[in-house]
Amino acid sequence: MTTSTIPAYAAPSAKAPLERTTVPRRELGPHDILIDIAFAGICHSDIHQVNEDWGPAIFPMVPGHEIAGTVAAVGSAVTRHQVGDRVGVGCLVDSCGECEQCRAGFEQFCSGPGGSTGTYNSVGRDGEPTYGGYAKQVVVTERFALKIPEGIPLDAAAPLLCAGITTYSPLARFGAGPGKKVAVVGLGGLGHMGVKIAHAKGAEVTVLSQSLRKREEGLKLGADHYYATSDPETFEKLAGTFDLIVNTVSAELDLNAYLQLLKPNGAMVQVGAPPVPVPVGVFSLIGGNKTLAGSMIGGLPETQEMLDFCAEHGIGAEIEVIRAEQVNEAYERVLNSDVRYRFVIDTATI
Amino acid sequence: MTTSTIPAYAAPSAKAPLERTTVPRRELGPHDILIDIAFAGICHSDIHQVNEDWGPAIFPMVPGHEIAGTVAAVGSAVTRHQVGDRVGVGCLVDSCGECEQCRAGFEQFCSGPGGSTGTYNSVGRDGEPTYGGYAKQVVVTERFALKIPEGIPLDAAAPLLCAGITTYSPLARFGAGPGKKVAVVGLGGLGHMGVKIAHAKGAEVTVLSQSLRKREEGLKLGADHYYATSDPETFEKLAGTFDLIVNTVSAELDLNAYLQLLKPNGAMVQVGAPPVPVPVGVFSLIGGNKTLAGSMIGGLPETQEMLDFCAEHGIGAEIEVIRAEQVNEAYERVLNSDVRYRFVIDTATI
Repeated sequence: MTTSTIPAYAAPSAKAPLERTTVPRRELGPHDILIDIAFAGICHSDIHQVNEDWGPAIFPMVPGHEIAGTVAAVGSAVTRHQVGDRVGVGCLVDSCGECEQCRAGFEQFCSGPGGSTGTYNSVGRDGEPTYGGYAKQVVVTERFALKIPEGIPLDAAAPLLCAGITTYSPLARFGAGPGKKVAVVGLGGLGHMGVKIAHAKGAEVTVLSQSLRKREEGLKLGADHYYATSDPETFEKLAGTFDLIVNTVSAELDLNAYLQLLKPNGAMVQVGAPPVPVPVGVFSLIGGNKTLAGSMIGGLPETQEMLDFCAEHGIGAEIEVIRAEQVNEAYERVLNSDVRYRFVIDTATI
Repeated sequence: MTTSTIPAYAAPSAKAPLERTTVPRRELGPHDILIDIAFAGICHSDIHQVNEDWGPAIFPMVPGHEIAGTVAAVGSAVTRHQVGDRVGVGCLVDSCGECEQCRAGFEQFCSGPGGSTGTYNSVGRDGEPTYGGYAKQVVVTERFALKIPEGIPLDAAAPLLCAGITTYSPLARFGAGPGKKVAVVGLGGLGHMGVKIAHAKGAEVTVLSQSLRKREEGLKLGADHYYATSDPETFEKLAGTFDLIVNTVSAELDLNAYLQLLKPNGAMVQVGAPPVPVPVGVFSLIGGNKTLAGSMIGGLPETQEMLDFCAEHGIGAEIEVIRAEQVNEAYERVLNSDVRYRFVIDTATI
């Protein structure tokens, strides 16, 4: 089915620097659309996959699951999108569409044969590897392209497709809104979106960050309060305060200390995950009907809901647009937490 | 305020056998009722408290927070109960009534000064120790006496005040009902109530027990399926099966293995707690939007709702009624899991 190639930035092998190359793309099937990619966000998980931190990966790898662009061509049976539409693609490009999870709009948990197909480092239903957003173009089945409303610039929209939905989903599911006290742990790519969205939902928002270094910025993003978790008094002072805590930090934290910050019936949701099991005091959960939950991106309906919500509230990611040849340097800076708050590749520079 | 004494069974000191004695009871205040106790259930937590497993305790201790009886006298301002009414008392006998938690019907999480008052091994707002249900009588403020509907015999009703509400609350909160697959881990005092209530709520119920020893009984109680957790195939076969798991086991289990049994968006609720922190793989929670929660008894409105539900569905606890002098022997049998499924003291024998 491969009929042409597209310029892209790829890691030729595990842990290798990314370099300019070309990768194959399939011809448009009847339900496919061709997207001219304008911007692609850099997610920390791109680096994990290039480095095979999460297990063996497929190379060459074109990372990128925060894709924003415009429709360049449509297959014969496409009904949802037209040439010129502003569209985005997130972490998924396919799923069975028929299982209980897909029918319920949780395509990320597709239980059909082979499960869902990742935007890159995955194998599609045609048996071919998928290539992500650090490229000039991508072909996806139309169901997996979301509409980016006019209100959001494409560059600031790109990170919404992962960082946005990853934080929106638990905030929506656990009822962040007026009268609720919400804490966001960590003010990075995910955390800054969590603050913006929780604030737009009307919650009283607290940032819990290692230090007060980003305090001014946090308050500008919409936080009402900002505390340093390196200060033990923070945990005394805030005991029993929050209805919801969204933890965006992947490093191993003392979860029991954070559970103590919840009100009765409160929930702490992990969107970042340390690689090793974390000790949880079950008494911390029982005493207060508390919940420790996990949340993984979001399905297509909720991702569209998030984009519409962000457009309505004038929310985009805070970004630093880079040229494609800066990607390896950007990776270093992500690893050093030296980005406010998301790198976005201008794919015109590929 | 002490005006009389009541016969009771008490532990004179930590870890000591219980013996017949008398304890003081307060005179009826305007909002108090005097209850002639008919039956008192034996909860495993009674033994933990007698043994000071959970920290220093108050002695002499009259355990018992599964109390069923009839109203013998009412204070001058009592409006909810009349002499002769069938009433029950659970784990709590007082709370501030004014804080956010009390107003929301979560008296067990009272955040007023001193928090809620336990039925025994606690100090009331009058500064006096509280004494529990292994006694002829008890005085409580009327708000903490629940109505036991006519449909439930008092002996089978007593354990509902702790074992019943402890399992009812998470089943209600996490939506056990038609179309839902619910697993109950452990078939003891709590577990057997979990099976009965989940079945009555219309869920498809599976028991996960160490062995198949109680299989026939489990099916009679309302379970649709019964698996041995000592068989590793159980965990393979049931992967991704349940919407809800209620874990009644206090021993340390591999929670991650149980989390694998949940469907996406499923919840595992702990009502039993091991004394030490348990390693939880956060990836187990994230991959599937899963929830690990705790649940502690229930507030007054939900406890009444549970009693009404049980009456409507003809549910009581499965009990073995004992004489008071058998209580120490019963404790031994509880520790050996040799009870089906709850001991209830006939307090006429005190």
